Amino acid sequence: MKPFDFKVLGFLFSGISAGIKKDGKRDFGLIYSEIPAQVAGLFTTNTVKAAPVQLGRERIRGGLCQAIIVNSGNANACTGSQGMKDAKRVSSWVAKRLRIDERLVFPSSTGVIGSRLPMKKMEEGIPQLVDQLSPGGWMNTVEAMMTTDTFPKIEVATCRLKEKSVTLCGMIKGSGMIHPNLATMLSFLVTDACIEAPLLQQMLERVAEESYHRITIDGETSTNDTVLLLANGMSGHPPLSRMNRDGKVFRTLLLKVCKTLAESLVRDGEGATKYIEILIRGACNKEDAQRAAYAVARSPLVKTAFFGEDANWGRILCALGHSGARIHPDRIDVYFDQARIVKKGMGAGPRWEEKASEVIKKKSFQVIIDLHQGKGQFSVLTTDLSMDYVKINASYRS
Amino acid sequence: MKPFDFKVLGFLFSGISAGIKKDGKRDFGLIYSEIPAQVAGLFTTNTVKAAPVQLGRERIRGGLCQAIIVNSGNANACTGSQGMKDAKRVSSWVAKRLRIDERLVFPSSTGVIGSRLPMKKMEEGIPQLVDQLSPGGWMNTVEAMMTTDTFPKIEVATCRLKEKSVTLCGMIKGSGMIHPNLATMLSFLVTDACIEAPLLQQMLERVAEESYHRITIDGETSTNDTVLLLANGMSGHPPLSRMNRDGKVFRTLLLKVCKTLAESLVRDGEGATKYIEILIRGACNKEDAQRAAYAVARSPLVKTAFFGEDANWGRILCALGHSGARIHPDRIDVYFDQARIVKKGMGAGPRWEEKASEVIKKKSFQVIIDLHQGKGQFSVLTTDLSMDYVKINASYRS
Repeated sequence: MKPFDFKVLGFLFSGISAGIKKDGKRDFGLIYSEIPAQVAGLFTTNTVKAAPVQLGRERIRGGLCQAIIVNSGNANACTGSQGMKDAKRVSSWVAKRLRIDERLVFPSSTGVIGSRLPMKKMEEGIPQLVDQLSPGGWMNTVEAMMTTDTFPKIEVATCRLKEKSVTLCGMIKGSGMIHPNLATMLSFLVTDACIEAPLLQQMLERVAEESYHRITIDGETSTNDTVLLLANGMSGHPPLSRMNRDGKVFRTLLLKVCKTLAESLVRDGEGATKYIEILIRGACNKEDAQRAAYAVARSPLVKTAFFGEDANWGRILCALGHSGARIHPDRIDVYFDQARIVKKGMGAGPRWEEKASEVIKKKSFQVIIDLHQGKGQFSVLTTDLSMDYVKINASYRS
Repeated sequence: MKPFDFKVLGFLFSGISAGIKKDGKRDFGLIYSEIPAQVAGLFTTNTVKAAPVQLGRERIRGGLCQAIIVNSGNANACTGSQGMKDAKRVSSWVAKRLRIDERLVFPSSTGVIGSRLPMKKMEEGIPQLVDQLSPGGWMNTVEAMMTTDTFPKIEVATCRLKEKSVTLCGMIKGSGMIHPNLATMLSFLVTDACIEAPLLQQMLERVAEESYHRITIDGETSTNDTVLLLANGMSGHPPLSRMNRDGKVFRTLLLKVCKTLAESLVRDGEGATKYIEILIRGACNKEDAQRAAYAVARSPLVKTAFFGEDANWGRILCALGHSGARIHPDRIDVYFDQARIVKKGMGAGPRWEEKASEVIKKKSFQVIIDLHQGKGQFSVLTTDLSMDYVKINASYRS
């Protein structure tokens, strides 16, 4: 992330400390569009869905959103019908203060599961939250979303659509969900482009495949994962309603921002000291490549070896062997960046082992695995598994 | 494990230090039966199979085994055709020294993947290994199998078959494979019962379902996992060739020994400070129960919470939600031993939370999850995920 100053036309941001988190840091944020925006969204596939996710899934059917209200410190998950009532109430308080329809307010929560939202604190915080809204207040909003994140994650990019300048701003929180999993990812994207909701949804789904879904294990999602994309059209270009050349320009912009956000999330992996791209080449097909990539990327033994800077390629072959992907062990090549440490399923010798040992000392590197089976390819980003990961997650609620 | 003295008629054991491990501990072991024994075996399902596993799978077709040769410190995996030649050579040396057919010798290896066996050291060790064979030498054999194990794991039990006393002795090594996975499990069982190989195999498979397979994730196996069961018939009862009352008596004995061995392996989980039984009740069927049990048992976030003694039940519900098992979140009850911390998908309140917090401080406890969907049930043993786990696995090869 770089220092920058920007505006997304018509969008205002704020973030305050409402006392939801114990440490007194910002924990309550608001994103507001001066006019209702077209909205697209992705929600967790976990069967256990937090109340705000259930509400968001309902409200997104309307195709419009004017405000996102977000809190950290409490996930409002596993809170039953009371949790749903609470989520609705918070959104109605915000709507009232903003003088908008409450169905245009999307609530979002992250934090500890199983406790009721501190309703009084939230009610008391809303006037301040609304009063502090400003076009440059995005850093406060990002801070209010953070849980175990060690740095705020935000990205901005611009493009031209029909001779108008368009800005897209994305923010993300999350740090533990990468592999291992389950911590919440929230990502909010706002733009002054003019794109109709169905097209926006189509773009978001396509882009997520290449960004957010490359850093998470399918199905191993938290109760609260949410991505929302708002487009209020205030840049003034004629509306886009189907995929054409302009649509592709915007989708490219969206992909760039989402990829950067996803990567920054990996870089902030809980306790991570390294970030590593696992690239599978030469699989029978893409599905096999994906299976193989995930098996390596989530193996605790591979990840602890990365942490220990031990180029223990045996664990990589072992993970491939139980991945379910079709492999012939004696065809597999493994590279650490350019160093081919495994040739045809066997160690390539001390010279290469030495080179790989240099690579693994770096903070960031690639592990390229060529299965020599076919043309399937897939890459996934992951981190090492450090002692700090255990420390952070053992003491999360205390 | 308790101190004990026993003999299995006709079986001799030894274990020495041949210099395969760097630390000078025992690393080369031998189990020998005075007459060829009927043999049953289970081998890793990993596509990447170590040379000794490939050889064992070939030789077991003969139905007979007279010697098991085992080394730690080197897995002889990912060593190509050279590894196969090496495994065969070691077994032929042993066979020669014992004056038996080399096809009756089953080699077994555990340790680092991708290095050739130190053939010279092994050749030089064999005379001593054979000379030291004795009926009471089993502790030396067990020690020679150990890698990251912190204590030797052995179990003995007896029963009567057709008025003859029969003894069964089992040993196991392994400590990291439980969840997370991939470390090697080796288990050797020897008995003086007289049971024909096909029946022996059938018994072993059935018993493994209820013991070894309850502590490992299906498919996430190492390159070397091996279970061998030898029956030399020297107790002198008439042979058993099909399942009858006597067969059931022996199978019960086998189950008891295998369960105890599997449990001791969990108790020695790498860096584990707690061992926990995850019991799923009320699932739609057994498969769903199994899915749910494994999802909870292998969730790093659940396991780090156990380590931190944090009764963070939200993470348990979250793991259930992405397990693939059919659930209704608002029906789920969760107990920590007797303390029902979750009632109908929600926290049961501070009183129960307090009780659960007491339970989680224990070294061993049950987590019972009732899905209230049907009658499916499954239980699995697991450990917490501690900082020591990371430490052990980050520095394994150094």
